[in-house]
Amino acid sequence: MAASKKIGTLAIVGVGLIGGSIGMAARRRKLAQQVIGIGRRESSLRIARRRGALTAATTDLEEGVAEADLSIVCTPVETIVERVRRIAAACPAAALITDVGSTKAEIVAALDRGLPRQVRFLGSHPMAGSEETGPQHAQEDLLVGRSVILTPTRRTRTADLDRLRWFWESLGAQVVQLSAREHDRRIATVSHLPHLVAAALAASARPSDLEYVASGWLDTTRIAAGDVDMWEQIFRTNSTHVLKSLSRFETLLNSVREAIAAGDYRRLRKILQEAKRKRDAAARPNS
Amino acid sequence: MAASKKIGTLAIVGVGLIGGSIGMAARRRKLAQQVIGIGRRESSLRIARRRGALTAATTDLEEGVAEADLSIVCTPVETIVERVRRIAAACPAAALITDVGSTKAEIVAALDRGLPRQVRFLGSHPMAGSEETGPQHAQEDLLVGRSVILTPTRRTRTADLDRLRWFWESLGAQVVQLSAREHDRRIATVSHLPHLVAAALAASARPSDLEYVASGWLDTTRIAAGDVDMWEQIFRTNSTHVLKSLSRFETLLNSVREAIAAGDYRRLRKILQEAKRKRDAAARPNS
Repeated sequence: MAASKKIGTLAIVGVGLIGGSIGMAARRRKLAQQVIGIGRRESSLRIARRRGALTAATTDLEEGVAEADLSIVCTPVETIVERVRRIAAACPAAALITDVGSTKAEIVAALDRGLPRQVRFLGSHPMAGSEETGPQHAQEDLLVGRSVILTPTRRTRTADLDRLRWFWESLGAQVVQLSAREHDRRIATVSHLPHLVAAALAASARPSDLEYVASGWLDTTRIAAGDVDMWEQIFRTNSTHVLKSLSRFETLLNSVREAIAAGDYRRLRKILQEAKRKRDAAARPNS
Repeated sequence: MAASKKIGTLAIVGVGLIGGSIGMAARRRKLAQQVIGIGRRESSLRIARRRGALTAATTDLEEGVAEADLSIVCTPVETIVERVRRIAAACPAAALITDVGSTKAEIVAALDRGLPRQVRFLGSHPMAGSEETGPQHAQEDLLVGRSVILTPTRRTRTADLDRLRWFWESLGAQVVQLSAREHDRRIATVSHLPHLVAAALAASARPSDLEYVASGWLDTTRIAAGDVDMWEQIFRTNSTHVLKSLSRFETLLNSVREAIAAGDYRRLRKILQEAKRKRDAAARPNS
């Protein structure tokens, strides 16, 4: 079954941390005969080639996808729709395109229909990343054991879903399916809200306190070191769900403040216990 | 110089993660001829002995400190004052006692004077820990490269300060001095506030979202898995400074919410940039 799905030409558009890691893993696992990297900067493409992520590279998008059976768009969220449309006009007829964007509803709504020549788009979100960026930080095993969320619609063909599922699973990931809207709602809570909270925590520190930080502060704020452009685009494209998650967090933080201010440590304890219970439960499958 | 400070008998009162790690390091570095572990549970003492943290162990506090030149109290914050008083009544005259409590003002105020027979107390706070507890998680190198804050008062003798500085530095730590009040103020921001925020974040997650958590959520909430009893006591004994830090955080989080709600992504960007700048600056010396 796996052999029948093997890809002739895989195009990776945007060869940074994620794109580079996908290329390295696809080549090592021999999922495609060709892996073409497409990027705007020659320097990134050179690094990605040197790291074994690509069999060929180009800065010309149309040229790069001309023979691509599967194209994966790994560029910033706000550029994905435009890139997919350009790919759809230049790739072989009936080819499949996916992306790795962290928000999905806007992208899927724009691309679910209207692509030419039977080209199809199906959204993916690999739940893997790092505060590091660039192909120099790519890792062949970045997706191993991670979740990839696929966001099919009513128009999605089963064959495309099977093919993408095979692709991500072949890279070592576990595939789950959600509607794009449900994806954005859940990811607001488990990924976008933590980023906002980590950023507010880091930004609220007095400079003179920073020399006393230890592992607690460093862990809690780690994701605040992430790429600002990328995160701004994520918040732009998922603002409604992010604000709802933020409200839930603020309500809880209010309870915490009121409990301490009132000296109601029984109430504080209950919140600390609930937090520990959920954290312990979430950590069990992965760490 | 180091040799002249070597300790005859070191008593460790409370042999958990921190106490066990101090014992392991002190023995490996031959800082004391005897390392006596004192605890309430035979089982913990047995584990600590097996791990090489102790030369002897007892559940009898008075017996354990009878010959201790230096006693280190590693019990929960709210028990420290009582333990130090009992040690002071039972240890040799003119001996030195310290602790490893995460809040200092209450403890130092209670113990800065009034100990019998020229016994002295000088507060310490090793900035090292883990969400794990118990001597089975002790590590010989837990303090290497970490900060230890000493909280001397006007009554502190220079010889005691030198001795404790030598002790912690011999375990690989960097020693800094702060008044107890200043300690509590700064640690509220860099340690206690992150714990509250991590706990509120973990507690606010919907159970159905937990299966989608990835490294970002797990890192940001890691410390929320910490010991609930220990943290409750920390918040009890540092509530004023914790509430002030929490206010600063809430102000920043308000700005974040307003920026997203208003679509003012230039303002959001500024906060994300400030957060990244501070996080990058704080990470540089240690990680």
